[in-house]
Amino acid sequence: MPTLRLALAQIDIVVGDLAGNADRALDAVRRAAAAGADLVVLPELALDGYPVEDLALRRSFQRASAAALEELAVRLGDEGLGGTAVVIGYLDHSPDAVPELGKPAGWPQNAAAFLHGGGVVARYAKHHLPNYGVFDEARYFVPGLASAVVRFRGVDVAIAICEDLWQEGGPAAVTREARAGLLVVPNASPYERNKDDARLALVRKRAAEAGCVLAYVNTVGGQDELVFDGDSLVVAPDGEILARAAQFREELLVLDVDLPAATAPLRDEDSTQTARDGRRVRITRTAVPTAPRELGEPVTGTVAEHLPDCAEVWGALVVGLRGYVQKNRFRSVVLGLSGGIDSAVVAALAVDALGADAVHGVSLPSGYSSAHSKDDAAELAQRTGLHFSTVPIAPMVEAFLGSVELTGLAEENVQARVRGTTLMGLSNQHGHLVLATGNKSELAVGYSTLYGDAVGGYAPIKDVPKTLVWEIARWRNADAESRGETPPVPESSITKEPSAELRPDQRDSDSLPDYAVLDALLDAYVEQDLGSADLVAAGFDPELVERVLRMVDAAEYKRRQYPPGPKISVRNFGRDRRLPITSRWREPAPGASHEAPKEVAR
Amino acid sequence: MPTLRLALAQIDIVVGDLAGNADRALDAVRRAAAAGADLVVLPELALDGYPVEDLALRRSFQRASAAALEELAVRLGDEGLGGTAVVIGYLDHSPDAVPELGKPAGWPQNAAAFLHGGGVVARYAKHHLPNYGVFDEARYFVPGLASAVVRFRGVDVAIAICEDLWQEGGPAAVTREARAGLLVVPNASPYERNKDDARLALVRKRAAEAGCVLAYVNTVGGQDELVFDGDSLVVAPDGEILARAAQFREELLVLDVDLPAATAPLRDEDSTQTARDGRRVRITRTAVPTAPRELGEPVTGTVAEHLPDCAEVWGALVVGLRGYVQKNRFRSVVLGLSGGIDSAVVAALAVDALGADAVHGVSLPSGYSSAHSKDDAAELAQRTGLHFSTVPIAPMVEAFLGSVELTGLAEENVQARVRGTTLMGLSNQHGHLVLATGNKSELAVGYSTLYGDAVGGYAPIKDVPKTLVWEIARWRNADAESRGETPPVPESSITKEPSAELRPDQRDSDSLPDYAVLDALLDAYVEQDLGSADLVAAGFDPELVERVLRMVDAAEYKRRQYPPGPKISVRNFGRDRRLPITSRWREPAPGASHEAPKEVAR
Repeated sequence: MPTLRLALAQIDIVVGDLAGNADRALDAVRRAAAAGADLVVLPELALDGYPVEDLALRRSFQRASAAALEELAVRLGDEGLGGTAVVIGYLDHSPDAVPELGKPAGWPQNAAAFLHGGGVVARYAKHHLPNYGVFDEARYFVPGLASAVVRFRGVDVAIAICEDLWQEGGPAAVTREARAGLLVVPNASPYERNKDDARLALVRKRAAEAGCVLAYVNTVGGQDELVFDGDSLVVAPDGEILARAAQFREELLVLDVDLPAATAPLRDEDSTQTARDGRRVRITRTAVPTAPRELGEPVTGTVAEHLPDCAEVWGALVVGLRGYVQKNRFRSVVLGLSGGIDSAVVAALAVDALGADAVHGVSLPSGYSSAHSKDDAAELAQRTGLHFSTVPIAPMVEAFLGSVELTGLAEENVQARVRGTTLMGLSNQHGHLVLATGNKSELAVGYSTLYGDAVGGYAPIKDVPKTLVWEIARWRNADAESRGETPPVPESSITKEPSAELRPDQRDSDSLPDYAVLDALLDAYVEQDLGSADLVAAGFDPELVERVLRMVDAAEYKRRQYPPGPKISVRNFGRDRRLPITSRWREPAPGASHEAPKEVAR
Repeated sequence: MPTLRLALAQIDIVVGDLAGNADRALDAVRRAAAAGADLVVLPELALDGYPVEDLALRRSFQRASAAALEELAVRLGDEGLGGTAVVIGYLDHSPDAVPELGKPAGWPQNAAAFLHGGGVVARYAKHHLPNYGVFDEARYFVPGLASAVVRFRGVDVAIAICEDLWQEGGPAAVTREARAGLLVVPNASPYERNKDDARLALVRKRAAEAGCVLAYVNTVGGQDELVFDGDSLVVAPDGEILARAAQFREELLVLDVDLPAATAPLRDEDSTQTARDGRRVRITRTAVPTAPRELGEPVTGTVAEHLPDCAEVWGALVVGLRGYVQKNRFRSVVLGLSGGIDSAVVAALAVDALGADAVHGVSLPSGYSSAHSKDDAAELAQRTGLHFSTVPIAPMVEAFLGSVELTGLAEENVQARVRGTTLMGLSNQHGHLVLATGNKSELAVGYSTLYGDAVGGYAPIKDVPKTLVWEIARWRNADAESRGETPPVPESSITKEPSAELRPDQRDSDSLPDYAVLDALLDAYVEQDLGSADLVAAGFDPELVERVLRMVDAAEYKRRQYPPGPKISVRNFGRDRRLPITSRWREPAPGASHEAPKEVAR
């Protein structure tokens, strides 16, 4: 039974940075080769980044991607790394594709190449293109129709890519038909809460279906609204975890695996299979001339601990924020500190992501700001070490109120917009990225001011419901205490009653239901996509269902103009949940009195 | 040879308004029946609106849509309209669909029903689902696999839907195989400049391919960023235009057509065809028991005049703006009037769309505003009759500058943001929708202030390049003059040199190339998606190509937060052109000196 030393390169990738990504891949191969690896597997579209969106349709980008792959193979050979096999995801295309309705321009493919000896030995194009949730791959790629099996050091290695694995009876089953001894799977699989549990179960199922060891390599890092969590895995066909990488950081996971010697004839006349998903799949076989070699001291893979829920969420938010700031070449951030829980948590996240010296917090008090709000903001600054300053907003607000008649909601909103304009001014003056501090519950019901608290380049907790904001704040404080460090979030920011402080004695509860109830209802409506009849059947008050659904539907226009932020839920607002602004669809209201609900339109 | 009286119901539809859309359909059938029509054809998804986006995936909406169709059929029967056949687009679904990866939830279909005698006689589901440009139908629908032919008054009527018609060898070819005598095609085909030429050529080609008369029915009106232009058509197999509806307004187009008598056996054993697009298509046949009837005085279809380019663009912008304002239940709009061409054109559009009494223009002068700017704004108000007021921004700007150190670009932006905050205050106080006045050229290169001139609920000229803004202004003035009316746009707003007036003697040309050059380059880069090498080969200066492409790429984050506006180009920013914010892809710069370009980041 041959033994292969595998290296799973769980690396961070920058979309569109072909040269930089090639360098990152080369660096990973160098380190893997130094550790004696035979075969290095890199993530899906590791040369191009994920998602590349409409860049996939640009001829110049397609050509550059194909050239970058060839160049990488040559550089590997030139550096004496040609003996180390590399499987890497890249954007392929058909150079002589003619325009055809229903086929994306240039016929791009989401592909992986098997590199060896300074050249490309085999190519595989993804069969199953996800086109739901945040994915739009039917827009970008032409599906592959062939399976690639490469005989390397006596083992038949098959390739599948990401969604291929989620399909019942798909390429994993074909792998068994092809009698491959190892299935390697490059991925760009975004983080969602608890998805790692689903992923492990899935990888186990497909390893069993393929009847061989499965090496699942995921990317890590933030890309616009997506956060990739890593969690790369090697699983035996019996379900045993042979190795598992950490979440939310880069890792080169190296291990020796014993694999069955290849026995299939190299040119198999009967090489077309009908997969159980109904597709006819051609199996292409390639052999890499490779001598047996001495592995030396055996290497056992490490199995990383699985993070608990709050640590996982915090990790995702930190990685998303850091990725957005750094990949867009910002060096610092600025945010308004109200003394409330949302801005405190965003500040703590920013300090964890970028260091206190890169974080600028500004207290922007008005006449309605309570003394404890100002104190809590200052205490947060002191606890975290961020740069702190104060800009009272009264002069600007008074100037507006002296020039235009603005009362009620309009007056409330002016305060928020003066704060937004002040933060944007500091951003323009000093080059900071502005962080918006709104949470998912507010965003859902439209309890925020467009161009006020909604300004910013990035919104770190836009996918975090209010109750989870409290929970992760408590977790972060307790985690700090357990390590003998200063808890970042002031206790009173966690325990005080939420208020926008835009008029005297204002409370969120004046306009909104209790957050525990609201968040449960939003979870059922937004995440689970239940209709009003189902919500009422699930026990929610009919009047509340009608009122909250109407608020959520009416706020779509605001959410469209909200800054991007990291996705952590099964379904966040934005790419996941695409709804027209102009829509008159109202969920039928079983049992509600049909009294017109009060609008919340700060 | 039987004669059928056709009615093409080119109606405006409100997304999600199932009850309202059913009423609109019923009203059209009533009017058609009064005109003696045998068969009324309504647009694609006429019951649901287009596009319904993720509403298509909601079980409650799917059920409501199916129920609305059944109810409409019953109401038609109850009103004594059961003898009039109706083809109408609606959202269908599979009631017992099980969740399956790769199939949208509930297995929705973009369908059309043939209604007669108070019930549904036949159903057809769209075969070809567009998934490019602004379309995402692979996300929403399961493709249909059958052709529906209904024998009605001795004629075999086949159905296809929108994209089906764009496919070579698709359902039109199957129509010929099925020996149908009439092909009816409900559409929701958005406006693009000059698309009506392409559409006529296409309809002619498919009528020839189908070998029968083709009745093409499009919807009309604005829906978020899409504008539907109508332009419904009836074409004979020899290409003759039998009737053509107007663009940009509702119309019931009625005409008599002589059609071949049906001869195919009603139960055709050999009823499966392989279309030239490779799909196996089952042909289902249904007969509607119908007596011959007396048509009376023959009705010849009218053929509407085709609008010239500027009139077409103006019509699209007016319809888009009116649709957005009315369908979102606003009664008035507010916008800043700078005296420049952009705000003047937006004001004139708003007055055309909503009437002068619904339009509020606000002059927001600063110390840098020239006298002619204020005069031109006032003259525009006087010419159009809109409500006019003035709010000097100096007090607010001074309050900001007294509280925070803001210089250079930061100071410029504060002025724009004070204007934005003032307009939003007026919006909150009085319920007006704010119109943003930015044009496509500015939006492309990021020459605008986020949360400043970019505030608003709708941006009427966001897809209109600066040079076209001038052109349509001149056209609108000349058109008014030709009708003896007052030209709305002051001459000096058209002829003056463009300036943001955010610092002394500022000119757009300080930061941007000449608009004629810029617009030509943007057209080649954005609309035609050319790479830098192609642009240089096309004769653009290499340095300019590098500078402009960098500006366009860097402004993606701003465009994301820009309000929606009507699409008139082949490719506008937004749904048409989906790019990551975080991307380091830079077009290779052939021949450029690689000197760092100056950033334009107002």
